[in-house]
Amino acid sequence: MTVKKAVITAAGKDQRALPLQTLIDQDGEEKPVLQMLVEQALSAKVEEVCVVTWPGDEGRYLQAAGKWAGRVRFLAQPRPLGYGHAVYCAREFTGGEAFLHMVGDHLYVSQQGQGCARQVAELAVAEQCAVSAVQPTRETLLQQYGAVGGRLAGRRDVYRVETVLEKPTPTEAEQKLIVPGLRAGHYLCFFGMHVLTPAVMEILGQRLGAAPDGPVTLSSALAELARREQYLALEASGRRYDIGTRYGLLTAQLAVGLSGQDRAEVLARVVEVLADRELGR
Amino acid sequence: MTVKKAVITAAGKDQRALPLQTLIDQDGEEKPVLQMLVEQALSAKVEEVCVVTWPGDEGRYLQAAGKWAGRVRFLAQPRPLGYGHAVYCAREFTGGEAFLHMVGDHLYVSQQGQGCARQVAELAVAEQCAVSAVQPTRETLLQQYGAVGGRLAGRRDVYRVETVLEKPTPTEAEQKLIVPGLRAGHYLCFFGMHVLTPAVMEILGQRLGAAPDGPVTLSSALAELARREQYLALEASGRRYDIGTRYGLLTAQLAVGLSGQDRAEVLARVVEVLADRELGR
Repeated sequence: MTVKKAVITAAGKDQRALPLQTLIDQDGEEKPVLQMLVEQALSAKVEEVCVVTWPGDEGRYLQAAGKWAGRVRFLAQPRPLGYGHAVYCAREFTGGEAFLHMVGDHLYVSQQGQGCARQVAELAVAEQCAVSAVQPTRETLLQQYGAVGGRLAGRRDVYRVETVLEKPTPTEAEQKLIVPGLRAGHYLCFFGMHVLTPAVMEILGQRLGAAPDGPVTLSSALAELARREQYLALEASGRRYDIGTRYGLLTAQLAVGLSGQDRAEVLARVVEVLADRELGR
Repeated sequence: MTVKKAVITAAGKDQRALPLQTLIDQDGEEKPVLQMLVEQALSAKVEEVCVVTWPGDEGRYLQAAGKWAGRVRFLAQPRPLGYGHAVYCAREFTGGEAFLHMVGDHLYVSQQGQGCARQVAELAVAEQCAVSAVQPTRETLLQQYGAVGGRLAGRRDVYRVETVLEKPTPTEAEQKLIVPGLRAGHYLCFFGMHVLTPAVMEILGQRLGAAPDGPVTLSSALAELARREQYLALEASGRRYDIGTRYGLLTAQLAVGLSGQDRAEVLARVVEVLADRELGR
């Protein structure tokens, strides 16, 4: 198994403008979020990226791809049938191979040498199975994410996934998603980054066939995957920032800025604004 | 003299997209910078706003004006003849009256009850003269701004302007712009906010007539104004943020967020990102 292709979903009504936002990256270069995501994928040795967009957005996306335009193709999701369907739209692109999948409204910041996507792809290739990046997340935030339950799989940051629930309630999480070793009140939530096997496309196809208009979540397909195949979760070294939330862009820019070459400049700006506030200026 | 009209310039090649950027304001409402500027003007009792745009931008600006569309008119600067010319484009709109002028790429944050524009307008009406808002600025930043020299005019935050220089060198500033009472190495730089009298339009008209293609700076017209009329500078209570600079949007959003109703949330985000960085996560 190799991972040569990546699928980025950006067709959600509230998310479609986010990859077009401009930020300054860790190297101090101003660029659209889309380019940062493509670079994240390329750093994981992916060769070609497919972005699933809202119909009509392809032109703006192509422009935003800039110097990476030659490595990216765009595919419109014909109807807004949900996240699982958006991933399924790329089935011909992935062509029966494993692929990296990232959501278009998250940014990934790693302070170690290796990007998050590369950590996930390397584990998937080494273990020859699907891998989802996860992050321990406070119970109060469960309503925003898919979450997994399982047990440690030999390394302190790798879990064998047994259960997947989309936006569980705290009660459901407590009953079904306990993971040994996590801090109390914390659960392993999806990071918006996965290496998925062809079985996921197959499961999505079956479910979309059974419910052609209903939303099919990726989480429900991953729950089925966990029953069929070995499926791992990696507590990736790094942080994900959901730029679609309130103050999400601000937080992502701060995190990227403070972990990159402009850290002194960004820290100075933060301190100056905090000082102004304290001095009532 | 009353101030019922405002002119916002947004026609600069590098600045034209900035008023269309979306931020979260002090009341926690997400809106384009343009709306925040219009609200700043309306809070100073201005009744009508004219925005000078790059030709063809009017539609996007009208959309960005949102609920204030009825209070705003748009006027394209037909050719890129510089900042002084952009202000002059609004001469029929201002119609021989004093007007508030703001640049479209700055945001103004005041922690006191009264917005910056209102402070400037009230002084202009009380003293029946032109007033520019100024901010003590470090010598190293002089190259970005127009700066004034003068002396205190009765209040500790009001100066009678005697000299105006556009982007002076530190040597020029030291020779011509010393202002008693300022910290060493600091000068009074423009804030991007003024109440201007009809004489400014007259001076701009004369200078543009003499140099129809050459750039005419607003600063050169204000230098002439200082020779003709009483002209004051107000060290406004508040801060200006130039969103066109590197990390300018980040800094402006931080400043607005930390001085508004969401301050606890924004501070928590900042602290969390700083902690992640220190812990190497």
